Amino acid sequence: MISFEDIEKAWKRIKGIAIQTPVIHSHYFSEVSGNDVYFKLENLQRTGSFKVRGAANKLKVLKQKGKKEVITASAGNHAQGVAFSAKSLGMKATIVMPKNATREKILATKSYGGKVLLYGKNFGEALEKALEISKQNDIAFIHPYDDELVIAGQGTIGLELADKSFDYVFVPVGGGGLISGVAIALKEQTDAKIIGVECKPFSSMALSLKNGRIIKVKPKKVIADGIAVPEIGKIPFEICKEYVDGVYAIDEKYFKKAIFLLLQRSKLVVEGAGAAGVAFLLSKEFKKLKIKNRRICILISGGNINKEELKKLL
Amino acid sequence: MISFEDIEKAWKRIKGIAIQTPVIHSHYFSEVSGNDVYFKLENLQRTGSFKVRGAANKLKVLKQKGKKEVITASAGNHAQGVAFSAKSLGMKATIVMPKNATREKILATKSYGGKVLLYGKNFGEALEKALEISKQNDIAFIHPYDDELVIAGQGTIGLELADKSFDYVFVPVGGGGLISGVAIALKEQTDAKIIGVECKPFSSMALSLKNGRIIKVKPKKVIADGIAVPEIGKIPFEICKEYVDGVYAIDEKYFKKAIFLLLQRSKLVVEGAGAAGVAFLLSKEFKKLKIKNRRICILISGGNINKEELKKLL
Repeated sequence: MISFEDIEKAWKRIKGIAIQTPVIHSHYFSEVSGNDVYFKLENLQRTGSFKVRGAANKLKVLKQKGKKEVITASAGNHAQGVAFSAKSLGMKATIVMPKNATREKILATKSYGGKVLLYGKNFGEALEKALEISKQNDIAFIHPYDDELVIAGQGTIGLELADKSFDYVFVPVGGGGLISGVAIALKEQTDAKIIGVECKPFSSMALSLKNGRIIKVKPKKVIADGIAVPEIGKIPFEICKEYVDGVYAIDEKYFKKAIFLLLQRSKLVVEGAGAAGVAFLLSKEFKKLKIKNRRICILISGGNINKEELKKLL
Repeated sequence: MISFEDIEKAWKRIKGIAIQTPVIHSHYFSEVSGNDVYFKLENLQRTGSFKVRGAANKLKVLKQKGKKEVITASAGNHAQGVAFSAKSLGMKATIVMPKNATREKILATKSYGGKVLLYGKNFGEALEKALEISKQNDIAFIHPYDDELVIAGQGTIGLELADKSFDYVFVPVGGGGLISGVAIALKEQTDAKIIGVECKPFSSMALSLKNGRIIKVKPKKVIADGIAVPEIGKIPFEICKEYVDGVYAIDEKYFKKAIFLLLQRSKLVVEGAGAAGVAFLLSKEFKKLKIKNRRICILISGGNINKEELKKLL
């Protein structure tokens, strides 16, 4: 199991690659919800998402062990996190992306120095290819969430929130790596309740916690593509059973509203997955909880939304 | 003349109304320019722009003198700054706006509790009306930039930058209130060079400094509406003569490019005027200066761009 000390070590390791992002107060969302609402702005993180934290921690440990090359599969933020970390550390990274990955994400990954290999019709096929190359050539495979060093890296966000006395922290949930790290970091030092937010129909974490075993859901296209993960990771499942106070799967319509309001009222570009916490704040599920006058931190996990989607929402 | 101590006093006064905004490092714009580039994020300020700082300082002093009501004329950020400050202080604010003010800005001003009076075809006519009401009813008029307390309030941004050892600070220039306050605050404590940025054809500050007297320019519709001021203020002119190291008027095309890149690469919603410093960084005027390896702070002054303009730029 990952310890608090693992996260402290990660925090030292990733300095100079990832930055400490700001925490700001949101007047608008405080008024709207009757609470004191803060944002942790990982959309302002390098590469536009938190993923660089976990990737940097993993890659730095591999580098210390003499490794010079890594491989991963991703059509999104993890690709950019791995590519940017590898470049910063003078390592080589190959990213297998499915053939339907957007031009924007391919270009961004390449711009950070990643070698992009287009393969397969979907993420599953790209993943298989990456694992195959990894085995055949003895190149380390970087899993986006089911990896202790990656989770410890994401947990560094929790360290940056620990001194702020939050009653609640809302965290987007896809594979579960982010919330696992953040929960370990915060539960050690604070009394904050850790709440996970998924986008329907991707309620794998909520269902798995309820059923006591990992449940896989049927995929569908949603705006929160960064957390559209049909099946959570094994390591995250074990951590979340112990540390997480609640997980809610929210309708996509609240995500769209959240992205728009973040743009218009908070002047922030936030992608679907990154808007999960605000979507929850606007949802009927949150209303039912009758949470008032609390200090709430919403983790805005990323800002990599493409131009066309943004245009549609405006 | 405004002193450094006036700005320190302002900083204490506006606490609880304005917030201390973050300073973040921009990896992208550092790489692009060959410098170490930071952003001071006043687009994340309450009301979406720095204007609330000056308004809060002025109104708090008036309140201490027993005033309960103020009036101003504005079609933009100053309107929201005055309305929000008045509400926070339990005062009454009337904002005279020209009849062609956008629905968005009118609604925003009303949402902060301001009483909106629509009058006249343009800002000049609205201003005349506001001054007339101010005189007839003995209600304090709040000038957007030609006022020592307003300038001292804007200067509080400089205090929040003083410990960061910047070589350069780039500041948008409209009427000149913002750069005046920031320059006084920074020149007292640091060696930073203060550079003003205007949007062509609104080069009143650059021309006035060159000619040793205030020069008025002919207006035109530009995307940087917040700094589209045909004639700088008298107090700012006197301050800038002494404290400002250079003022550049930049073509509108660089502003458009800056807004787009801030959105796409930096995940920030920035209005035309707010993007002035980035526009300068991208301009041929900046290239000519051959500035490299310096610590540059770009003041992002506001984020109140309307939906339609944003859509057009995407």
